[in-house]
Amino acid sequence: MTFATPCKEVDRLAEQCRLNSCWLNGEAVTGLPATDRGLHYGDGLFETIRVDNKQPIWWQQHLERLRLGCQRLGITIEPGIVEQELQGFIAEQKDHGIVKLMITRGSGGRGYSPSGANQPARLLLWYPLPNYPAKNFQQGIQLFDCQSLLGHQPLLAGLKHLNRLEQVLARQEWNDNQFAEGLMLDLNQHIVEGTMTNVFWVADNGELHTPNLNDCGVAGVCRQFVLQQAQQRGIATTQERYTVADLAKAKEVFVCNSVIGIWPVRAYRQWSWPLGSLTQQLQALINAVMPCERLFSKQ
Amino acid sequence: MTFATPCKEVDRLAEQCRLNSCWLNGEAVTGLPATDRGLHYGDGLFETIRVDNKQPIWWQQHLERLRLGCQRLGITIEPGIVEQELQGFIAEQKDHGIVKLMITRGSGGRGYSPSGANQPARLLLWYPLPNYPAKNFQQGIQLFDCQSLLGHQPLLAGLKHLNRLEQVLARQEWNDNQFAEGLMLDLNQHIVEGTMTNVFWVADNGELHTPNLNDCGVAGVCRQFVLQQAQQRGIATTQERYTVADLAKAKEVFVCNSVIGIWPVRAYRQWSWPLGSLTQQLQALINAVMPCERLFSKQ
Repeated sequence: MTFATPCKEVDRLAEQCRLNSCWLNGEAVTGLPATDRGLHYGDGLFETIRVDNKQPIWWQQHLERLRLGCQRLGITIEPGIVEQELQGFIAEQKDHGIVKLMITRGSGGRGYSPSGANQPARLLLWYPLPNYPAKNFQQGIQLFDCQSLLGHQPLLAGLKHLNRLEQVLARQEWNDNQFAEGLMLDLNQHIVEGTMTNVFWVADNGELHTPNLNDCGVAGVCRQFVLQQAQQRGIATTQERYTVADLAKAKEVFVCNSVIGIWPVRAYRQWSWPLGSLTQQLQALINAVMPCERLFSKQ
Repeated sequence: MTFATPCKEVDRLAEQCRLNSCWLNGEAVTGLPATDRGLHYGDGLFETIRVDNKQPIWWQQHLERLRLGCQRLGITIEPGIVEQELQGFIAEQKDHGIVKLMITRGSGGRGYSPSGANQPARLLLWYPLPNYPAKNFQQGIQLFDCQSLLGHQPLLAGLKHLNRLEQVLARQEWNDNQFAEGLMLDLNQHIVEGTMTNVFWVADNGELHTPNLNDCGVAGVCRQFVLQQAQQRGIATTQERYTVADLAKAKEVFVCNSVIGIWPVRAYRQWSWPLGSLTQQLQALINAVMPCERLFSKQ
């Protein structure tokens, strides 16, 4: 075939989206091959990593989750190369920002069979830090009540894979800025997570609760950090199936991910919660590794 | 940013996979932008279209399914442009082959919200016809018993979307050539479909059965053709929930898609079925629009 390089349309679209910097297998690119199985099937995984002062925060945890995810999908990666490329990539960027690391099964022919696709693609994208109102962190947020329900699929539950249409559909439900995040239930009306966060709440007896991820949901790196910090402090944690009735009885509620850290939840449906002390304690622990002030918008 | 054109790594990988020809929004390319939401979230749909003598077979049905899928995902396409590009693309290719048409929500920033991504990407890829043993068509195939179960997600059921990890995991289960396809059940052990086909069977009373697609599965274009042909011939068709016990009692079984047409099923688990007359009748109808002989391998 005749290769259409330079790829004008690819460059034009990447520029339009203000793509800052992107590496494919260590090489600076604007695009990826049209044969990549990440595009065709969502056949891959990703990690969204906050970079603070050139340091990828919680990198070992991200890498470990990626490694486990690749194992479950049968994708072979060399963690050493992934780490080395990440370091090289970050060295070329600004001090603070977001790296999105994607691993796909690589390029292949037509058809679902992954046989023959044995060179996984490593993709690194750089994004500036997002901006959020300071009050999201300081006073808490209001959760939108997503009507899109998460399906059940134990084979993929917990994974941060590239099949994310459910989150796209849920996030599409609202445009109103008064909701900083939306809460998603599953087909059985059990609480699972936010569209981009995990959810926790503190019960009256001080125990910390978060939904288990047996049937759906993403096992967030910040979720894991929160669980570990609680356990180290002697706070009992429970991962179960819960309904909104359980949430309604909570004394504090928060959502978390590895970019924002923690946002207290102050309202959802007819319920509201005060800013809680455990929430604030955990926020302080996270702020020590990645200051939330860097995300405050000027508005 | 500095654009890395020509994209050496993109071209290298595309060439390695023998990418024949690819258009992005009407322009010949080897890759697509790294910002495309098809890659990041599987945020899009596809059609696999058989081309016979320069004619895209069942094109109106493919386009109609694509249009409905885009509607459900909230992606706006102009069918006229899609059709025009397909025609221009096919004109440049060989007489017979496969076009894979992908529509993604287009390029966007980081985050699930589709807001701002309002230029869907149109991607056309050309593949040679696949080769299959003539006996797949003439004597029937043996179905592999996939252990990967399809999850339940009514929001996405029926759609030919780009979130296809379930099919990848199922297709990964076997490498043995004696199985030309694998049968997938859902979480409740109901029969749904093959990894790349829909499944039908004829009951003792002559009625034609195929699983409904309320919770999962792809509403295949060939499935629709089969249902219509049966109805036109006064053959009762039923779409229900079925278990393998129902399949076991069938007098003929077949799988179908819009590339292969129909393969009779001769064996699955401990059961076997003879080559049936309705199966052969339907095969003949399909052969009239796209001859199966073109797919016979020389082996």
